[in-house]
Amino acid sequence: MHVMILGAAGMVGRKLVEKIAREPLAFGRPVTRLTLADAFQPPVPEALQPVSTALTIDLAGAGAADRLIESRPDLIFHLAAIVSGEAEADFDKGYAVNLDGTRALFDAIRKLGLTSAYVPRVVFASSIAVFGTPFPEVIPDEFFTTPLTSYGTQKAIAELLLADYSRRGIFDGIGIRLPTITVRPGAPNKAASGFFSNILREPLVGKEAILPVSDGVRHWFASPRAAVGFFVHAATIDTARIGARRNLTMPGLSALVSEEIEALRRVAGDKAVALIKRVPDPVIERIVAGWPTQFDATRASSLGFKAETSFDEILQVHIEDELGGRFA
Amino acid sequence: MHVMILGAAGMVGRKLVEKIAREPLAFGRPVTRLTLADAFQPPVPEALQPVSTALTIDLAGAGAADRLIESRPDLIFHLAAIVSGEAEADFDKGYAVNLDGTRALFDAIRKLGLTSAYVPRVVFASSIAVFGTPFPEVIPDEFFTTPLTSYGTQKAIAELLLADYSRRGIFDGIGIRLPTITVRPGAPNKAASGFFSNILREPLVGKEAILPVSDGVRHWFASPRAAVGFFVHAATIDTARIGARRNLTMPGLSALVSEEIEALRRVAGDKAVALIKRVPDPVIERIVAGWPTQFDATRASSLGFKAETSFDEILQVHIEDELGGRFA
Repeated sequence: MHVMILGAAGMVGRKLVEKIAREPLAFGRPVTRLTLADAFQPPVPEALQPVSTALTIDLAGAGAADRLIESRPDLIFHLAAIVSGEAEADFDKGYAVNLDGTRALFDAIRKLGLTSAYVPRVVFASSIAVFGTPFPEVIPDEFFTTPLTSYGTQKAIAELLLADYSRRGIFDGIGIRLPTITVRPGAPNKAASGFFSNILREPLVGKEAILPVSDGVRHWFASPRAAVGFFVHAATIDTARIGARRNLTMPGLSALVSEEIEALRRVAGDKAVALIKRVPDPVIERIVAGWPTQFDATRASSLGFKAETSFDEILQVHIEDELGGRFA
Repeated sequence: MHVMILGAAGMVGRKLVEKIAREPLAFGRPVTRLTLADAFQPPVPEALQPVSTALTIDLAGAGAADRLIESRPDLIFHLAAIVSGEAEADFDKGYAVNLDGTRALFDAIRKLGLTSAYVPRVVFASSIAVFGTPFPEVIPDEFFTTPLTSYGTQKAIAELLLADYSRRGIFDGIGIRLPTITVRPGAPNKAASGFFSNILREPLVGKEAILPVSDGVRHWFASPRAAVGFFVHAATIDTARIGARRNLTMPGLSALVSEEIEALRRVAGDKAVALIKRVPDPVIERIVAGWPTQFDATRASSLGFKAETSFDEILQVHIEDELGGRFA
């Protein structure tokens, strides 16, 4: 089968590619062709080089989506996006990529399907940013989407398009709303949510990390490995089980920052915990106060999507996948 | 003030224009300029001719929205749309007008606001078609929007855009989800919902009407007069009271077809009821079974939006507004 990953240079995209490299039968059929595309040149693991094409593209560019879809991928992962902070700061760019780029992709599939039989599976990375305060402590599957960012608005619109195009049989789509992915590998970044990962990742390798919010902050988490698992499951599930409501809040772990810290203590001791420096940042505190803390992801769970159930597990995943099973 | 009505040739648009003709101070300030636009030439009441411009436009046409907004209306009613059946039959036309046309309008306001202070009030006609089965018997304000038509999808997307553009201060928007407007004046039309009006309007003037569903069908109604009231209230309400959630399900009357018939009997007697011919139509029965039957429109009610509370009232409105207070 021909698999296409848009946003293949991003963290989750790269991990999805690595998964395919390790498990060529992850989708049940051999991956005979792999197209990786991103705004930055996506890396290609050696094992996949014979079947891979890596492209640097602007999804919102004229004709870009049509050229991608011409190659008739059977399975398309759409993870390409301008992230939340940038989409808020740059109105035009956020709408151009996250809305127009997504619609161009969906319409390219539609146009190809008008002239020949073509109904690919499309797995779309959505976000819990489709929700906006105030919400109940535990957000149910049928809660309305009232985003408070342009990014969340663009994701919610893409979800609606995905459902309508799927209903019309243009493609077979699933939108998956990811929890905050933790522990993110790599260097600390400036995302407001970065500290959730920083306070675990950095102390595990003997480095300090800053905690800008109180220990009592609650949030919604899954590991990068769980995220890849969501995408693989979404690629292979029988969509007849899903029906018309194609956008699913993924399961996750609702946990306090203090629970993160206690898991770190159990795994790496007081010495690691002592590396967490409390530097309250009112701006980040205010941003985080607007985020969901817990979902009742009954539908996705009943459809077989799985996440971790404790921060000990999330830490263990990080140690296995990023630190070769060992830590400092 | 300069008032613009897009979709001014439609039934609700025309009634809104007539309201302004009768009550020049309906919005608190005199209407010194009125721009009426539609795909068909909108009629202009004589009293408003000195201040009115009537335009035939295609909102989705190149530059059309910019040319409209150049005149800097203070208050914009956006009722222009390709209706549900046509948007479902003609994919391109529905998306072009209902999504691209709406976005072009919103972006025209944004562009003008980039070069000079301009933040108009925008009142958008949305629809309960943003909801799709299965839903609870009474749909709460926080229920999610999972439309099962392209029309409903386009309305739900426009709602999201309206909320995001309002949050950013580009304009001051309100989306109002109208109930099924009953009794629609004019000739019977082919809309699947037409019979709800036909079985009242036609017998009142001594004509037969066909009832294609059972008496036990429940639906959600408001009169044309109530719809105009929603628009006027949305134009004048202090939006600080609404906050970020700018799209509101309007109040309405949840009633059975049998309640419509009994109201007709009380007003016009058995002779009128006898003109209703039962001709079951499985296609219409199936379509109607997918429609909402009742909402808990708490938010809109608490914000002062008002609809009828009985079919006797709805019939009385029709007799007063369409039949000069008399019926055959």
